[in-house]
Amino acid sequence: MPKRNIAYKPVDSLKSPRFSGVRTYMRLPHGTGLEKADVAVFGVPFDTGTSFCPGARFGPAAIRDASSILKPYCPLTDVNIVENISVLDYGDIDTVPGYMDDSFVKIEAGMVKICEAGVIPLGMGGDHSITLPLLRGLTKVHGEPVALLHFDAHSDTISDYFGRDYNHGTPFYWAIEEGLIKPEHSIQVGIRGPLYTKDALDYAKNKGLEIITGPQLHDLGLRETIKCARDRINGQPVYVSFDIDFLDAAYAPGTGTPEIGGFTTHQALQLMAGCCVGMNLKGMDLVEVMPAQDNAGITALAGASLMHIFLAQVAKGLE
Amino acid sequence: MPKRNIAYKPVDSLKSPRFSGVRTYMRLPHGTGLEKADVAVFGVPFDTGTSFCPGARFGPAAIRDASSILKPYCPLTDVNIVENISVLDYGDIDTVPGYMDDSFVKIEAGMVKICEAGVIPLGMGGDHSITLPLLRGLTKVHGEPVALLHFDAHSDTISDYFGRDYNHGTPFYWAIEEGLIKPEHSIQVGIRGPLYTKDALDYAKNKGLEIITGPQLHDLGLRETIKCARDRINGQPVYVSFDIDFLDAAYAPGTGTPEIGGFTTHQALQLMAGCCVGMNLKGMDLVEVMPAQDNAGITALAGASLMHIFLAQVAKGLE
Amino acid sequence: MPKRNIAYKPVDSLKSPRFSGVRTYMRLPHGTGLEKADVAVFGVPFDTGTSFCPGARFGPAAIRDASSILKPYCPLTDVNIVENISVLDYGDIDTVPGYMDDSFVKIEAGMVKICEAGVIPLGMGGDHSITLPLLRGLTKVHGEPVALLHFDAHSDTISDYFGRDYNHGTPFYWAIEEGLIKPEHSIQVGIRGPLYTKDALDYAKNKGLEIITGPQLHDLGLRETIKCARDRINGQPVYVSFDIDFLDAAYAPGTGTPEIGGFTTHQALQLMAGCCVGMNLKGMDLVEVMPAQDNAGITALAGASLMHIFLAQVAKGLE
Amino acid sequence: MPKRNIAYKPVDSLKSPRFSGVRTYMRLPHGTGLEKADVAVFGVPFDTGTSFCPGARFGPAAIRDASSILKPYCPLTDVNIVENISVLDYGDIDTVPGYMDDSFVKIEAGMVKICEAGVIPLGMGGDHSITLPLLRGLTKVHGEPVALLHFDAHSDTISDYFGRDYNHGTPFYWAIEEGLIKPEHSIQVGIRGPLYTKDALDYAKNKGLEIITGPQLHDLGLRETIKCARDRINGQPVYVSFDIDFLDAAYAPGTGTPEIGGFTTHQALQLMAGCCVGMNLKGMDLVEVMPAQDNAGITALAGASLMHIFLAQVAKGLE
Amino acid sequence: MPKRNIAYKPVDSLKSPRFSGVRTYMRLPHGTGLEKADVAVFGVPFDTGTSFCPGARFGPAAIRDASSILKPYCPLTDVNIVENISVLDYGDIDTVPGYMDDSFVKIEAGMVKICEAGVIPLGMGGDHSITLPLLRGLTKVHGEPVALLHFDAHSDTISDYFGRDYNHGTPFYWAIEEGLIKPEHSIQVGIRGPLYTKDALDYAKNKGLEIITGPQLHDLGLRETIKCARDRINGQPVYVSFDIDFLDAAYAPGTGTPEIGGFTTHQALQLMAGCCVGMNLKGMDLVEVMPAQDNAGITALAGASLMHIFLAQVAKGLE
Amino acid sequence: MPKRNIAYKPVDSLKSPRFSGVRTYMRLPHGTGLEKADVAVFGVPFDTGTSFCPGARFGPAAIRDASSILKPYCPLTDVNIVENISVLDYGDIDTVPGYMDDSFVKIEAGMVKICEAGVIPLGMGGDHSITLPLLRGLTKVHGEPVALLHFDAHSDTISDYFGRDYNHGTPFYWAIEEGLIKPEHSIQVGIRGPLYTKDALDYAKNKGLEIITGPQLHDLGLRETIKCARDRINGQPVYVSFDIDFLDAAYAPGTGTPEIGGFTTHQALQLMAGCCVGMNLKGMDLVEVMPAQDNAGITALAGASLMHIFLAQVAKGLE
Repeated sequence: MPKRNIAYKPVDSLKSPRFSGVRTYMRLPHGTGLEKADVAVFGVPFDTGTSFCPGARFGPAAIRDASSILKPYCPLTDVNIVENISVLDYGDIDTVPGYMDDSFVKIEAGMVKICEAGVIPLGMGGDHSITLPLLRGLTKVHGEPVALLHFDAHSDTISDYFGRDYNHGTPFYWAIEEGLIKPEHSIQVGIRGPLYTKDALDYAKNKGLEIITGPQLHDLGLRETIKCARDRINGQPVYVSFDIDFLDAAYAPGTGTPEIGGFTTHQALQLMAGCCVGMNLKGMDLVEVMPAQDNAGITALAGASLMHIFLAQVAKGLE
Repeated sequence: MPKRNIAYKPVDSLKSPRFSGVRTYMRLPHGTGLEKADVAVFGVPFDTGTSFCPGARFGPAAIRDASSILKPYCPLTDVNIVENISVLDYGDIDTVPGYMDDSFVKIEAGMVKICEAGVIPLGMGGDHSITLPLLRGLTKVHGEPVALLHFDAHSDTISDYFGRDYNHGTPFYWAIEEGLIKPEHSIQVGIRGPLYTKDALDYAKNKGLEIITGPQLHDLGLRETIKCARDRINGQPVYVSFDIDFLDAAYAPGTGTPEIGGFTTHQALQLMAGCCVGMNLKGMDLVEVMPAQDNAGITALAGASLMHIFLAQVAKGLE
Repeated sequence: MPKRNIAYKPVDSLKSPRFSGVRTYMRLPHGTGLEKADVAVFGVPFDTGTSFCPGARFGPAAIRDASSILKPYCPLTDVNIVENISVLDYGDIDTVPGYMDDSFVKIEAGMVKICEAGVIPLGMGGDHSITLPLLRGLTKVHGEPVALLHFDAHSDTISDYFGRDYNHGTPFYWAIEEGLIKPEHSIQVGIRGPLYTKDALDYAKNKGLEIITGPQLHDLGLRETIKCARDRINGQPVYVSFDIDFLDAAYAPGTGTPEIGGFTTHQALQLMAGCCVGMNLKGMDLVEVMPAQDNAGITALAGASLMHIFLAQVAKGLE
Repeated sequence: MPKRNIAYKPVDSLKSPRFSGVRTYMRLPHGTGLEKADVAVFGVPFDTGTSFCPGARFGPAAIRDASSILKPYCPLTDVNIVENISVLDYGDIDTVPGYMDDSFVKIEAGMVKICEAGVIPLGMGGDHSITLPLLRGLTKVHGEPVALLHFDAHSDTISDYFGRDYNHGTPFYWAIEEGLIKPEHSIQVGIRGPLYTKDALDYAKNKGLEIITGPQLHDLGLRETIKCARDRINGQPVYVSFDIDFLDAAYAPGTGTPEIGGFTTHQALQLMAGCCVGMNLKGMDLVEVMPAQDNAGITALAGASLMHIFLAQVAKGLE
Repeated sequence: MPKRNIAYKPVDSLKSPRFSGVRTYMRLPHGTGLEKADVAVFGVPFDTGTSFCPGARFGPAAIRDASSILKPYCPLTDVNIVENISVLDYGDIDTVPGYMDDSFVKIEAGMVKICEAGVIPLGMGGDHSITLPLLRGLTKVHGEPVALLHFDAHSDTISDYFGRDYNHGTPFYWAIEEGLIKPEHSIQVGIRGPLYTKDALDYAKNKGLEIITGPQLHDLGLRETIKCARDRINGQPVYVSFDIDFLDAAYAPGTGTPEIGGFTTHQALQLMAGCCVGMNLKGMDLVEVMPAQDNAGITALAGASLMHIFLAQVAKGLE
Repeated sequence: MPKRNIAYKPVDSLKSPRFSGVRTYMRLPHGTGLEKADVAVFGVPFDTGTSFCPGARFGPAAIRDASSILKPYCPLTDVNIVENISVLDYGDIDTVPGYMDDSFVKIEAGMVKICEAGVIPLGMGGDHSITLPLLRGLTKVHGEPVALLHFDAHSDTISDYFGRDYNHGTPFYWAIEEGLIKPEHSIQVGIRGPLYTKDALDYAKNKGLEIITGPQLHDLGLRETIKCARDRINGQPVYVSFDIDFLDAAYAPGTGTPEIGGFTTHQALQLMAGCCVGMNLKGMDLVEVMPAQDNAGITALAGASLMHIFLAQVAKGLE
């Protein structure tokens, strides 16, 4: 294939030190020129949906900071991102802190704008409640539900909390109810930890979602899990939602509800690379990075790096 | 005066180490038996109204932790608190994180319950938005507005933020609008830092509030400021609202919008003691302690200690 | 089996936010009513026995804080704790900081009280020296030594330190000498790191204790290790002592003598669940959580979660 | 005076939350369009000149983060910055980490570019060594030396360190030697702490610099010190160099060589406002903010706020 | 006076970077050669006497680290330390962690050894309980009690805690009872904060100690307080005991029982310099630096700097 | 073999607490008496070569602090270090912060001195740039190049950065160019993460170096990797260079360019022990420990422990 003309390129870190300059994702240009972009990286600095420890509103800034050490070529996927796709740091979608409904309207509108431009959205949370308006926006433009590839310690399929519908424990209940995802092509990976009741996961299962729990993933291993997820998605247009607490608390201390018994970054990188390669990737969010409790920025770095794998697989698809 | 029978007494820290036991304010009993209490200490772990850095929902827990080193006798006011009043740790008022309106209803209801029992409320925030429902509850029971003694770096009299009425920058706008406070007997002390516009403080002044700015307080000194505040309150039933960012950021790093150019804990203790002595104290809140950014717990300790002065002045009034 | 009447139930975290209220273990009731409890969770905030970095006296408070996000149903063991057993937060046993002997008397007396009430003790340290008086109290009531299931990086079977008998490196030397445990049914798991001498572990082995070192556990794997421990215990009444430094320093930075080359929380959860199921569990302690060096509370969370597994296996036994 | 047309305005924080968006100084536009700017804020992320604790290369990023809570109107100076001047975030000047000479060439060239455009430079360090190439660039364009208003704990007039000329302890030795400043109109304020020798300050004094030591400033008070500095500068074109360790270590822990016995942010704000009002301000740098050791960002916030005063006084001059 | 021959000199920090080498106090030689020393700096890493937050056992290491940035000439006292006296880092006195009595014997013995060599002791704590055995050792050698100059937030004259005589709240009760100090020439400065009872300070006062409380010091100012202390000491051989919590919690967060409403490092430096000049200085301890809660090492730096003033005044006496 | 006479022995930590005394590596004697040493531990506190986050100049101090809990007998290698070899803490090699070339001269000279004394060098970084002058010094004395066993996340074989030859990304490019190592007997293990270009590793491979990437190591497992490395080295005199970022960021947060997807300390210990046993060990460096971002000292502890394995294998070779 002839080399495409790539509009947006990052600063060269062999010439300009990586700690220099205004911080954008991976030192890419910042702007709103969607027309020249293949992928738009954007933040949704919103944590009003947090049930325990807030602060994910500072997630996008932390991920941008950490991403400055990322380089263009990804060995895991054998692709040079910036030679194959044009990626833009689109800035943040403004929200209304303290107000769920107002914010959801704004987040959905922002997502619609990106998708309407034919650009693949790559969002940085914020808490997990943002995935609901993001999926609303995505499916509104695409006209049909998507397969969901969901990495998380928690299923987030509770119907309500404290008597209200929306918070970061409920997005996938509502995504199913609103027909935003295709349960039969969707899968949740890594779910673990104590639950409110024995049947807490029944809703999701009854609706047709597949769940690979944390202990199951520990038993199955990477290869089997990847195969399982790929079979499930089966080539459908797919949206990836990655809650950073999929990682073990030792690897991702900077999150609002850390969970032990989880996974390493090695495992997460392999799963992302293996599940996404060759897929019809429609978008991704990376949520729940909360820098106030992070340690040496390792959680933000993990988040930035997992987004990097997504970019690499999009790039590979366009190679 | 014959010694009153004091129902609630703290654990004796010369016998039981101060780091021992379930944490309540000042190691006082925890329960809901308002009928035997003169003052009820309670938490409002709510930070949905935060415009910048959230986490004040963990304020009550942090203040309780820090308060375990407080002792009964207060030299500044020359009174032994626990020999003169019965203080109960009433626990926390539950809120609905992420939902302002639902939470305000619950906070007001909780306040009403305490006030109806004839008990003096001493609340731990939480962000400053909670003062509005607390004042609603207080005045509902008392049947009339109160004088306000307000220590803060910010006036919090903006009418709206992001297109919505309630957050931690607006409580006193609405308290004035709803007739919860008597502006002519109210005073704001310590207001400082850049403003949105030159006339940002005009609303409050036009409504009759007195404002002693930070620089003015630095010039006037403690004695003059105390005199000024006492003249203003003039014996009216008074409610104290203490935002911990009245303190300089070096003294109170653990808060959501730290402000430099502020005051020392020595100054704050003297002001609280000097302004409150002999006053008709109807209640107090101590807000905006955010432990995620605190340093060695010094912000929480300052908060706990300023509440201690309030208790001492209540105790002195009953001596 | 007909449902038992459960006296103590935690606050419902779907109704009351998990960051709300005075902090008890798992949001359970706090009190001294042992007669209605199956298990009593209690703290022993004592670190006078620490040879390197002190601060474990704040362990119980940190574990209580972290435990507020634990939910009732444990998938690893397939049991709902709070529907099957009544668990009480019994508060802390007061000690005399700086005085080993005085403190040991108090800790033993506190343990006797719990055991005499027929309640299973679940203690939170505190440094590991507390296990000696806890075992003294337990065996005094039960009238015979117990099997010991001991997870740790260190064998803690040195006879003396700095010329004195008791500190956190010696409890199991004295437990053996005093006949508090049955060496032939006891096992130490995870012992690793440099030693004072090559024969540092000989005392324990000569007395009949089995030791699975860290490297051996890495080689054996979880299944074999569990089998080995169960064979060893062989149905005897068993006491579990879990030193949090069994976990690798990356998973448990908040401890006084962190040790590298250790284990993940996934491994620890599986080992606890696998070794304890169906056993005659007489009590447990979880020691050496030291929050001053913890990171995002992950060490305290690990400790709280491992206690949760113990509760689950007790509950399963009574199902 | 008719309102000028202001090209660059910050985002409105009453509409867009202050934690939203790519981080620039005070949420101002980022770009290189000097022709529409009155002042260019820029970073010099360089700490190769540090003799003790490095990390000031992350100072510009930290100051940008902290500055997002600054508002347009400055009460201390009674001026609305953004209504009176056009301020641009010009990004960072790239340097060559590890190489003093190469970096000095780049820093000087960057400064020349800004000054040649007729724009007032407002630089964020970096360590204090950067002031030498900044002064070289400034005077190259202006054609003559400037008066120096220097706030610092250290005089930085040592001739060499470890056998080499340039590091952050030597810039003013070389500025004098190279004729970049007018000693007779220059003043150093706040110098304190132990020295290498009794006559360590003699070079500066012999060259005609005035030094108000820390203890002298504590004695003189703000008003006298301001008068003294203004007399000294006497209307000459002046460059302000503010080392954040002028502040006491409690107010500025985030710096490479913190010094106790220093000053509060209240004092610093008053001094900056009082010394700069009505002066012929040619430029400023704010150096030595080192976020790795900062506490809740208070050092970066102090730095951002002191730059704000400079902007305000520039704005006032153009009102 | 002819220059004395100074045996021990620090490394030259203009030649060898201050972060280089094994850490001793002020980069002085480490050894046991007391015969060539005028002053011996030594650590007492002991915190078994701590009633709240332990960790002062790491105080000496933290002070040594911080002291590497101290330079030889002290402007406040106008003396070059290393040109006038020979100072040795004598290392630490070993103690028995967890055992008060054993440790006191060792500390006293270590102190006797230093004093018998005719060397002035300058000890680094450790918690304040160490001052009792240090005074025992000092007076044993000197043959008579000393005047005490005591800076602290707490009087430490309680007779017992938790039923035992010795901990860090009781050293001066026992120093008086054992006749180690001359109360009529002794003074406590800075005492503040809540007390157990109104008459908590009566014991000390009845024994003839003078107490300048924190609020009194705030009122009197530095000059009056210095005069008062000097009158009190009146030329008697004097021992200085400086508890770092004399400083406000914002200036000294790294301590076991931080206290608000306290003093700045500027005030502390002036008081130390003013009280000690020309006095018959017999020794000093600087206690309660606890690095686990310190912030950027500012507490340790303050401690190291206050010791520096003591050295300077000793040097001045020998000039 | 008859026991050798060991000149240098560490303090006995069962008699003197491990937190006591001036900090040297493993509590060994500090001095320059190379003639009685088998191995010299020394620091190179230099981070001028850092391309991202500086602070490794404090690495030696941090490793010394952490090493105080290491004991003499190493179970992994079954050898008692201090009974078999004499190890000296030789202090630090002074450098010229901010000047690469000057520093390289000093580092090389220091290395020559150690090697000429026939002592095995064990260096603590500092950033990875120091390995170049260390190898220069080593080969100058030994007269021929060495095999290289290199653990790292990064290959560090870039030819230049920012237009200059030397920084911490280039040492092995120059080591190959200068003929300091034998590529055909050298191996790099653990290389991972994004690269500047697809062929970034080609230079090293073309020169004959073997590279086992991170993912390859994850696949191969420990046994195969050890075999591969041993085959490669094949008995040649070998120098070990261990960059702490070989470890995953969760295990080594305290480093300048943390990398996720890496290895555990268990894996690192096994690899070091397995690769080094029986080898002709000529020296080692452990680099890139940066305490400012470390967490509870776990990175420094890992570094100290990996050095301990090296010492053990040297000791075993002399047993």
